Parts: sequence; C-alpha cells; structure tokens
Amino acid sequence: MDVNQESLKLHYEMEGKIEVVSRRRIETREDLALLYTPGVAEPCRQIAADYDKSFELTRRNHLVAVITDGTAVLGLGDIGPAAGMPVMEGKCALFKEFADVDAFPLCVNSKDVDTLVQTIYLISQSFGGINLEDIGAPRCFEVERRLKELCDIPVFHDDQHGTAIVVAAALLNARKLTGKEMGRMRIVINGAGAAGIAIGKLLISMGFGNIIMCDINGMICEGDEGLNPGQEEISHISNQNKEHGSLADAMKGADAFVGVSRPGLVTKEMVGTMNQGIVFAMANPVPEIMPEEALAGGAAVVGTGRSDYPNQINNVLVFPGIFKGALAVRARDITEGMKRRAAYAIAGMIPESELRADYIIPSPLNKNVANVVAEAVAETAREEGIARQA
Amino acid sequence: MDVNQESLKLHYEMEGKIEVVSRRRIETREDLALLYTPGVAEPCRQIAADYDKSFELTRRNHLVAVITDGTAVLGLGDIGPAAGMPVMEGKCALFKEFADVDAFPLCVNSKDVDTLVQTIYLISQSFGGINLEDIGAPRCFEVERRLKELCDIPVFHDDQHGTAIVVAAALLNARKLTGKEMGRMRIVINGAGAAGIAIGKLLISMGFGNIIMCDINGMICEGDEGLNPGQEEISHISNQNKEHGSLADAMKGADAFVGVSRPGLVTKEMVGTMNQGIVFAMANPVPEIMPEEALAGGAAVVGTGRSDYPNQINNVLVFPGIFKGALAVRARDITEGMKRRAAYAIAGMIPESELRADYIIPSPLNKNVANVVAEAVAETAREEGIARQA
Repeated sequence: MDVNQESLKLHYEMEGKIEVVSRRRIETREDLALLYTPGVAEPCRQIAADYDKSFELTRRNHLVAVITDGTAVLGLGDIGPAAGMPVMEGKCALFKEFADVDAFPLCVNSKDVDTLVQTIYLISQSFGGINLEDIGAPRCFEVERRLKELCDIPVFHDDQHGTAIVVAAALLNARKLTGKEMGRMRIVINGAGAAGIAIGKLLISMGFGNIIMCDINGMICEGDEGLNPGQEEISHISNQNKEHGSLADAMKGADAFVGVSRPGLVTKEMVGTMNQGIVFAMANPVPEIMPEEALAGGAAVVGTGRSDYPNQINNVLVFPGIFKGALAVRARDITEGMKRRAAYAIAGMIPESELRADYIIPSPLNKNVANVVAEAVAETAREEGIARQA
Repeated sequence: MDVNQESLKLHYEMEGKIEVVSRRRIETREDLALLYTPGVAEPCRQIAADYDKSFELTRRNHLVAVITDGTAVLGLGDIGPAAGMPVMEGKCALFKEFADVDAFPLCVNSKDVDTLVQTIYLISQSFGGINLEDIGAPRCFEVERRLKELCDIPVFHDDQHGTAIVVAAALLNARKLTGKEMGRMRIVINGAGAAGIAIGKLLISMGFGNIIMCDINGMICEGDEGLNPGQEEISHISNQNKEHGSLADAMKGADAFVGVSRPGLVTKEMVGTMNQGIVFAMANPVPEIMPEEALAGGAAVVGTGRSDYPNQINNVLVFPGIFKGALAVRARDITEGMKRRAAYAIAGMIPESELRADYIIPSPLNKNVANVVAEAVAETAREEGIARQA
C-alpha cells in the first residue's frame, strides 16, 4: 500500500487528528458551580474590566488558530476550504506534539481579501496567535499585512515565513561548511510566489549577498513588467546587477540554489556551472533535481523537502517553536528580528564540529528544536519590547 | 471563600478549561508522512471530489462551535466577546464531559447582525454543528434564522431552545404529577426575551394550552405596540383571550408560572392566586420567588435554576445530547420535532412511579441524559429525512 492509500485508511480510522478535551472532570455540583454557573461569572467580570486578563483566565494564551481559505493547499492548488482541513488538522497535531501548543483548524469559505481579513480579525480575540496557511499568492501578502496591523496577537503566514526561516537556517550551516562569505554569495531562488519571496526577503535582511529571484520567465529584474506587488517589492533589493536571462543563466557561478518551484527544472549540467553549489531543491514531492543528480553535477551540499534523503528542510522545525515562544511572553507580533533569531537558533543546534554535507539541519523529528526556537523568539520579543509579559 | 472567588482562583490555576490535543503520537518519519505530508494530500483530494467526505476524514463530525458575540453573557449583559469566553469554554467542557462531543469556543467581535451571520457562516465548514450562545435579543432571532438557512449543519441557539426544551420536560412531568390537562393549562411566562419566547413557542407547539407571555409592562397581547419581531410573532398564537394587565393579573388562576426574568418579582400572595400552581422560577442566581416562599404560597411543584434546591431546571440536560444525536446521524438541521422529542425523552427518564413534587427532572449531573436525548434526536432526524447517514 502506498503512502496515500495508507494515509487515507488511517484518516478513516482516526476520525480526526485532533480532539478538544476538558481539562477537568465535571462530576459534582461544586464542579458545575465553579467551572460553569454561577462561579464562571467572576472570571468574565475580571476580563470585562481588564481585557489583558483574557490571556490568563481562558485557554487563549495556549491557543493558535490555523486558518486557511483552501486556495493553495500543498501542491493541490485551490481545492476549497473543507478539502484543506486534513492539512490544517495535521498542522494542529504537529503544534501539540512538537511544542505543546494547542492549535485549532479553521477554514474560511471566501477568497475575497477584505472578507478573509474581516472574518479572521473578528474571531481573533479567541486566540493567542494566528497561523495563516495555504492561502494563495499574491492575496496572502495583503491578508497577512492587514491582519498584522489589525490584530493585537501574532499573525504568521507559515508558507512564507516558516519556509524562509528553515531555509535560512540550512543556508547558514551550509555556508559555514563551505566557507563562503555571506555578503558575497550569489543565491538563486526559483519560484517567486509566497515562499520564494519570503525566503528572498529574509535572506537579504540577514545579510546574504546578491539574491536573484527567478520565476517561469527567468530572472526577475527591477523595472520588469507584470510583477505582482510582492515581486515588485523584492525587485528593488535583489538582482543587484540587473541581470536578465533564464534560470540556467542565473545559476552560472551561483553559490546557492533554492527551489520552491516544480519537479525537474534543474539539470546536472546547470549544477555543474555553479560555484561549489549549495542546492536546496524543495519542490514536493519531487524536487527540482534529485539529490543523486545534484551531487553528480558537483553540488557541495544538497537539501530537499523529503524525508528519505539527508537534510530535510521542513518548516515543522519552525512554526511550533515560533508560536511557543511568542505565546510564552504574550508577544503582540512576530517580527523580522524574531525570524532571524529563529533561523540562527535552528542552525546553532548543530555544533560546528558535527556539521557535514549531509547534516546541516536538525531532524524534523527532533522535538528539542521547538524549545530552542521558542527561547530565541521569546528573548527577542522581550528585547524588542513587544512582550506583554516578561 | 465564596463561589466567585473560588472559581476565579481555579480559573487562574487551570489556564483554560479545554485543551486541543493530538489524537496520535508523532514520533517517526512514517507518522509525519501519514498524518502530514505527503500522505495527507489523499484525504484532501477525496474531500475536494466529494464534500460529504469532510465529515469522515476530519474531526468535523465530532465538533461543535460554541459561538458568542458577548452581548448577553449570563446575567452580566453586554460585556464583550473576550469577556464572554470563560462561559463558552465552560460550555465546551460540559459538551465533552457530558456527551463526548468536542466543542470549541469562539467569540466574534461584532454586534452587527449581517456581520455575525457572515462570519459564522464562513467558518461553518470547519464544524459539524453550531451552538449559538449569549447573543442578545432580538438580534439572536435573526442571526439564528439566517444561519439555519445558510448552513448545511445544525444551528442551535441554546439560550432559546436549550432552555425551552428543559422547561418543557419539567412541565411535562409536573403536569403528570398534578393531573392537569395539557390543552387546558393557563401558563404564564414572565420575561419575553430570547428564552421566554422560545419556551412559549415550544410549549404551544407541544399542545400546552393558553400561554400568556408577560414582560415588564405586563401581559403581551396581539396588537400591542412596541413589540419586537419575536414578541409580535408569538402574540398571534398566545394569550388566547386577549387579556391585558399585570403579571399578578396573569397569574390569577394560572396552572403554571415560568420565570426567566429577574429576582423577587413574584410574591407568596401571587402564587396563592394560582390554581394548584407549578412554579418554575429560573432567574439566576436569585429566582423570581424563593422555593420556600412559593411552597408557603401553595405551589404544588417548584423548580429553579439553582443547584441547592430540588428540581434544578438546567439546560446542561439538553445541549450535549442534542448535538450528540445530531452529529451521530450528520443531521442537516435541528428541527421543532427534534426539540419536542428531546423534551419527552428527558421527562421520560423519570418513571411515573418515581415522580414526586421534588423530583420532576433528572439531576444535571446525570450523564445518561445526554445518551437518551441523543437517541431521540437521531431517531427524529432519520424519520424526518434530514439525516445524512442512517
């Protein structure tokens, strides 16, 4: 039985991957009186008098909403909100298993940016954080930006920033291993959607050198026509020499390739034109180039999204810890500083002496990563003054 | 320490009354592959191809949303959405404890009917049912009516129908005990808000005789000015003799009094004018008349909302079983027929031989009630053809 059929069978058997339970037995009249009426009136009054108490007197501060509109689910595309729920539930199970964060899946049945923003904002007081998921580009940029402005809790589009952080972590270690200079690296990012643009922006903000974004038409250059707002924004800070040309052209002499695009776009020969290339081929389930091929082409370090090869670059290393840390200090936001520190924290989990070409990133199953990321995020929030609580 | 302070202390200690957990450990690469990528793609595809599978391949069919706008929380009034959450969480804990139904609390930060309806509708595909809670009258009527039209899952405003069903159950048994004839009973309902009107409508639909609704101005009569839509609607089917006058006037010769109003409105003398009166004084925490007083006034049967007197008329006897039954057959709606049957099921839990004036309704702690109600509801759904599944 293949993984799809086995997963389907398991889903039928499990009747859901998450469950909402009561944290206390209710057996006696006293239980009823304390957990429900009349006693529950007092916590209500306290929150009515002091809104911040909602983080102490309810589950809110342990609780993240995992929200999708179902428009960009995995590689499946726009399959609708109900069909996106198995992914959201899976994510919620990971939140609990990896970071002891309660997460609840919600699908919103609308593709309209205003409606999505309003709906999510209006329920945001029920949660301590909002993880946006599988919302298609370019809408996801505006949805996230506006929600970050409106909400007093962290809002994080994982497809963008979770991916960007884990790629940055892997790249930090691959750079150490290869001795490349951060500021001088030529880094090609293929795929200029939500993930690609977020990767580019984070790498630039961390001081990685010349970033070249590519899409189906080749290199993206300042002044190009037909760019969406996210692409237009990054065009001003990437492709420093205003190059034009194909992906193959971009890869000539490149120090790193980051693929968030489609299977099989990269050949052994293209890798051969790179400068001791770091190749992160993350298209799922089939990478832009298979690891064997990339290595045969001369790649120095290879990572993919797959669990059956070394260096699995998976954002499960990121989102549980990001929210665990943010909730721990009741952060009002997830900032650029928190993202950078999270990347350094993940990279730092492998001591320099243990770094190898096939070991630049911790295993996705390493549950200690979330704690380390959480600490880095919480500390940054305190330093930046966006923590509600020390 | 009084119940309020004790409850507050417990709320601080508990950090939430509910918790979202993972239904399966995630420890191995295989776990990740089956519960998350790449395996999870297959359940997504199945739902995309057949929407009804969302009830089988996610937690949806075990899951009820408990939703408020925070405008009519307990007796506290409009305290805002965040402040209403301790009640919603308590309700969710009760759902799980009493019926093994997963329930998740959501507050919506809007008082606008259109906005409430849209917001709730847009997230409804995440759930198997929607329990509306503590939404002020008269808005709650329109919110519920429109959501019932829009959603393909049961929508149930508990403050209306949960209360109505448990009152009807208690009245069925009180009637048996006193030998009154249903169709000839004069029943005064004091408080013409959400609960009062729902009680009136359900009792009428069950064949209880002349219902007289009272509000602060006394008896409500067809043609009165200043009635809200809910009051206007019931005015056509209640107060058969078009009486006018005070609550005291209404109670003269009445067979039953149902209070969902305010403390202390009813005197011993008023009870004395009743016809072997059944007195359900349910204002919380202090009833319209204390049980001792009502009995001293000659009441035949007395019930309240309190746990420290016999005959506690509490809708925890209702909502867990209603949703348990509806979810069991994937009902598309909660119908009038289901409500009536639920009332009969609750009443029927006390064998006629055991009925006493101080025992007309099962204890709120009797966890078997939910099963009995669920069975009645599921059977009715099947009979009425609104069950998705046999």
